Amino acid sequence: MFEGRQFKVGILGATGTVGQRFISLLEGHPFLVVHALGASPRSAGKPYEKAVNWKLSTPIPSAVRGSVVQECEPQHFSDCAIVFSGLDADVAGEIEMAFRAAELAVFSNSKNHRRDPDVPLIVPLVNPSHLSVIPYQRALHNPPLRKGFIVTNANCSTTGVVVPLAALERQFGPLDACLITTMQAISGGGYPGVSSLDILDNVILGGIVDADPGASGAHSAAAGGAAGHAKTFDMHSAHPLRISASCNRVPVLDGHMATVSVRFSRRPPPSPQQVHEALDAYATEALALGCPSAPNRTIFVHDEPDRPQPRLDRDFQRGAGVSVGRVRQCPVLDIKFVVLANNVCIGAATSSIINAEIALAKGIIN
Amino acid sequence: MFEGRQFKVGILGATGTVGQRFISLLEGHPFLVVHALGASPRSAGKPYEKAVNWKLSTPIPSAVRGSVVQECEPQHFSDCAIVFSGLDADVAGEIEMAFRAAELAVFSNSKNHRRDPDVPLIVPLVNPSHLSVIPYQRALHNPPLRKGFIVTNANCSTTGVVVPLAALERQFGPLDACLITTMQAISGGGYPGVSSLDILDNVILGGIVDADPGASGAHSAAAGGAAGHAKTFDMHSAHPLRISASCNRVPVLDGHMATVSVRFSRRPPPSPQQVHEALDAYATEALALGCPSAPNRTIFVHDEPDRPQPRLDRDFQRGAGVSVGRVRQCPVLDIKFVVLANNVCIGAATSSIINAEIALAKGIIN
Amino acid sequence: MFEGRQFKVGILGATGTVGQRFISLLEGHPFLVVHALGASPRSAGKPYEKAVNWKLSTPIPSAVRGSVVQECEPQHFSDCAIVFSGLDADVAGEIEMAFRAAELAVFSNSKNHRRDPDVPLIVPLVNPSHLSVIPYQRALHNPPLRKGFIVTNANCSTTGVVVPLAALERQFGPLDACLITTMQAISGGGYPGVSSLDILDNVILGGIVDADPGASGAHSAAAGGAAGHAKTFDMHSAHPLRISASCNRVPVLDGHMATVSVRFSRRPPPSPQQVHEALDAYATEALALGCPSAPNRTIFVHDEPDRPQPRLDRDFQRGAGVSVGRVRQCPVLDIKFVVLANNVCIGAATSSIINAEIALAKGIIN
Amino acid sequence: MFEGRQFKVGILGATGTVGQRFISLLEGHPFLVVHALGASPRSAGKPYEKAVNWKLSTPIPSAVRGSVVQECEPQHFSDCAIVFSGLDADVAGEIEMAFRAAELAVFSNSKNHRRDPDVPLIVPLVNPSHLSVIPYQRALHNPPLRKGFIVTNANCSTTGVVVPLAALERQFGPLDACLITTMQAISGGGYPGVSSLDILDNVILGGIVDADPGASGAHSAAAGGAAGHAKTFDMHSAHPLRISASCNRVPVLDGHMATVSVRFSRRPPPSPQQVHEALDAYATEALALGCPSAPNRTIFVHDEPDRPQPRLDRDFQRGAGVSVGRVRQCPVLDIKFVVLANNVCIGAATSSIINAEIALAKGIIN
Repeated sequence: MFEGRQFKVGILGATGTVGQRFISLLEGHPFLVVHALGASPRSAGKPYEKAVNWKLSTPIPSAVRGSVVQECEPQHFSDCAIVFSGLDADVAGEIEMAFRAAELAVFSNSKNHRRDPDVPLIVPLVNPSHLSVIPYQRALHNPPLRKGFIVTNANCSTTGVVVPLAALERQFGPLDACLITTMQAISGGGYPGVSSLDILDNVILGGIVDADPGASGAHSAAAGGAAGHAKTFDMHSAHPLRISASCNRVPVLDGHMATVSVRFSRRPPPSPQQVHEALDAYATEALALGCPSAPNRTIFVHDEPDRPQPRLDRDFQRGAGVSVGRVRQCPVLDIKFVVLANNVCIGAATSSIINAEIALAKGIIN
Repeated sequence: MFEGRQFKVGILGATGTVGQRFISLLEGHPFLVVHALGASPRSAGKPYEKAVNWKLSTPIPSAVRGSVVQECEPQHFSDCAIVFSGLDADVAGEIEMAFRAAELAVFSNSKNHRRDPDVPLIVPLVNPSHLSVIPYQRALHNPPLRKGFIVTNANCSTTGVVVPLAALERQFGPLDACLITTMQAISGGGYPGVSSLDILDNVILGGIVDADPGASGAHSAAAGGAAGHAKTFDMHSAHPLRISASCNRVPVLDGHMATVSVRFSRRPPPSPQQVHEALDAYATEALALGCPSAPNRTIFVHDEPDRPQPRLDRDFQRGAGVSVGRVRQCPVLDIKFVVLANNVCIGAATSSIINAEIALAKGIIN
Repeated sequence: MFEGRQFKVGILGATGTVGQRFISLLEGHPFLVVHALGASPRSAGKPYEKAVNWKLSTPIPSAVRGSVVQECEPQHFSDCAIVFSGLDADVAGEIEMAFRAAELAVFSNSKNHRRDPDVPLIVPLVNPSHLSVIPYQRALHNPPLRKGFIVTNANCSTTGVVVPLAALERQFGPLDACLITTMQAISGGGYPGVSSLDILDNVILGGIVDADPGASGAHSAAAGGAAGHAKTFDMHSAHPLRISASCNRVPVLDGHMATVSVRFSRRPPPSPQQVHEALDAYATEALALGCPSAPNRTIFVHDEPDRPQPRLDRDFQRGAGVSVGRVRQCPVLDIKFVVLANNVCIGAATSSIINAEIALAKGIIN
Repeated sequence: MFEGRQFKVGILGATGTVGQRFISLLEGHPFLVVHALGASPRSAGKPYEKAVNWKLSTPIPSAVRGSVVQECEPQHFSDCAIVFSGLDADVAGEIEMAFRAAELAVFSNSKNHRRDPDVPLIVPLVNPSHLSVIPYQRALHNPPLRKGFIVTNANCSTTGVVVPLAALERQFGPLDACLITTMQAISGGGYPGVSSLDILDNVILGGIVDADPGASGAHSAAAGGAAGHAKTFDMHSAHPLRISASCNRVPVLDGHMATVSVRFSRRPPPSPQQVHEALDAYATEALALGCPSAPNRTIFVHDEPDRPQPRLDRDFQRGAGVSVGRVRQCPVLDIKFVVLANNVCIGAATSSIINAEIALAKGIIN
């Protein structure tokens, strides 16, 4: 699809945890080429290898090792077809708006614009159709934009859960209720993030993510309704989905686990075997479009009673796929299972990259 | 109550993990005195300090350091008013029956006799009234017994959860449904137990504990129906309680956490504030009876959003109390919260000890 | 010795990690009574329980729970016979000098004044005789002081090692060389301190502590020469001690381990058995003086090949004692062994407290 | 060198930890093809994926997934040009001798034959010339062998240390003394190996590896004298090397760290800068011979003060290279540094594989 073409890519927050992951994931990408690196004024002017405190176990890609870091100003990124943002929330909001206003295509992993009604919140394995919001976003801008836009992806703990939920809704219709307990990895807290004194030999309670219908990223991405004027996307407009979540942090480096119990609207509900098959069969538009970072297999359903496990399964499909296990009947709701997703890959940078690949494949990036 | 009196105590499986805990907890006990130590033939004949691979951070109590370990045969324990069993399941069944047949009072932490219809399964903070099963147990024995009996306590992950459930049922009537996700400590797996290669930087899925009504220890202890001919104990005989549990092992040394969502039978259900107060106010018969190992405060309800935590709160009330936090509305069921209990104390040896204290206070031990 | 008397104590940095430890260790102290709490202006005016983010597994002592936190200004501490400082290094220097100038007796765990030539650097189990420097310190002050002074204790990784070294020098004369590799706990880095992303499943290299003779705290405390005009203390003035250390941080909460190889000046060197006995027999002036926080047994020498271990042995003597193991011949130097000391107790707050107890016993505090 | 040729490979202990690593490392090998899998009678007859409890984060290579496991008897391996042994020590000795007697070329990671005087103990990055012992081994066998032999590689904690020591001796002549403290990963203990209850929040003391000259694997491999009749290999025959080691286990999954201090025979000793350069420049015969599993760069010397770290650096060169850091003067001996090697790769299976590649390149395998 993209044979022979190359697209220049900029990375905002390039020295941070998410930025490092963008750089690592894009090494050897068939058509996305890292071209510009943006970071704080403190880092600007230095070669990347001097500016960064590299924390990954793979070495800094040689192509960016000597690249000079720029400040996060649009003029340094004007050649870039795509700009990925791994900026911290305290600066991401303004900078990303400035880049959009400068007619740049921004794919952000930051939370600042996730709830903007005209910004698509896209879990690439779930609701890429929401990219159709972009023309509205451009038209609503003052002045109207020809090329610039912002696309966001979901929170790392949401992403892993909504993929199997979307698979179930596609096959069996709307869910009625969902009860979730997360066991989240420390890397979800950023760097330096979680103090070792808090988490060694311990579990820490995390943020509440209870959803009244329509408000949560989990719900809207799962259900397909990210944007306000996109109500027609949402199969839940008539069937509010009740979600209850309890969040916990555990001493695991990467890989968010969650136990999930669901109740279907339809009666009788599907059997565990039918659920197993529906999860197994779930195929994404991203793969159909030929996106190279999309997982070949979206959901792997384990039969062994002791899988998935974060350490053994978080690298499934280079961290882009989702692992499910222990699909069985729930004596209280209908079906329960566990889900594992790599929070630093599909839960973060990988999602932004697949979103950009989809946008390229659909011709949305001019 | 027991002023001036002393009761001799024997410990079966004295060199094991649970046995070490019994010995440590009984150090300085006001009226229970460790008198006889039983272990495998391999250990028999050695002084305790040579036979044991002591794994606690407190030193071996000096009083037992030189005690000679015996084989687990009743004749070595005939002086003991009480025998605690921390035996492994592969030998506990037979040995405990032999001790009962020899007219000894056995308080066992092992699972072998938990489901015997004539053996009370007692969570001491919940259902000590079930000790009234003991006369039936003695009468059903062949030949009938005058003094011997077996009392068991519940599984370590069950114990912590049923205490707040019992508090809620006492105040608000029967529960309708309960959804639980555990995050269990490695010490629950015994020693050597969980391989470090399995749990470091990882979460392991554990056993399923789904309950059809009446079958599970969780249910029966919570509801008050341990024994077959004790149906009248059971407020659930007309209202089956649906329980769904997902069990996980996390890299924590001691302290089982669980997230719990409950649905009450009564409508409307109590508010979070009412639940908070009911948990706070829960008082036990064990405390009223003056049992020295019973917690002064049974349930501590934290207001801070990040408590309880295993490492900070597992030693609450010397490990005999239960910590609850984050009591709030559940959008799917009625109320949700987290609970923490020390699996090696109230989840194991401490329960056996309080059970024995209750039995003494009630005059059940002749 | 102090029967019936009570001494009021102030704590600077009371909300920090070291301050919390001071408060916890002083609970139930026979004659030191916490009277005033100092912290940053942000905390001043609040009751302690609101100002602190309490991180210990024991609860906040009820006596200080409601105490109002003050700013760290001498006028709020004028009643205090003793002021303990757990201040961060960025503010400790100035504040402690102000307290000294206000005629207060400051026992500091901070590093700022450790190398002042007139400030005694005291490892209480090693060189309390250095308190004799205090009159010089007062006289050198401008204006001269009657009551005020500063006493410091050593760095947490130094303290554990110098205790056995001092025991060996007392018995066998000066050491010639010492090679040390530390495996330090994360609590030595303060809070939030070490990021969990850095230390989980990892070892981090720490600071170099190589000593040219006379310069290092390790050396001077071991050898007895903390202060410039105290040359006569120092058995090493004619025999420079060569020290080489490699520091590492490991995923352990509390308890610094170190492997130590030593070469004695005297030939032939003592045997492992003689070293074992000398360590075992080492008694401190602090104990002779009746200091209640001093360990009854200073050094415990383990015979088991797998002890000491941080988790099992760090609470030896309430964290005030030192554990040694694996005393054996070193094929390169003379003797080697491992040493474990609790970095948050004898390596920090406990040392300050024992130093104050010694000063009281010696009548140095007016 | 081996263009177009393929060599059939057998793996003994294929379901164990080391066996799994052999299978994983050989996936996609240019000329070694896994052909036969041997395990215990319990596993024999099953397809590999059913027989194994796969513990690696990469999936089971599809080529061996369905291979039927055999018993460890030579007749099932008669087609194999090379047999790798990852057998447990309790069975490895006999089985490997039977395979050798059946004229098979055995490359063993087990310890049983490491000290046989006619069996070369080869650290492939250090002393491949010792393969010249093989003709003696064959000749000494009764009856003499034409093709069969055993080659062993060193213990996982030894291997990492001897590589830089060999580099230093090559450049600067014999070492006089070496002091080592290891911080070893839990995977060095096998599976299930180290109990999580022993190692979480802890450090465990390990085995002593003190060497009187000539006795230790560390010494003989470093110095080049594995076999009795190979004295001429050994530059140390006139200069005994004194080695003192203290071994510790830390909560790290993979990657053995060690602090090392060395004293050179030559005076004056080399400077840290010269040592740095000698380590950097160290090139191996294995690389010169074109062995595909040999590291392109044998030793990477870090300049950053906080590297190497196990988690970030253990995968250097696919785990086949060695990382060194903090090269500096030692105030007691001459030079000190830290070294990190991946114990499950170059410390185990990777060494066996490179040894086999060398033997093929040298025409030793008929």
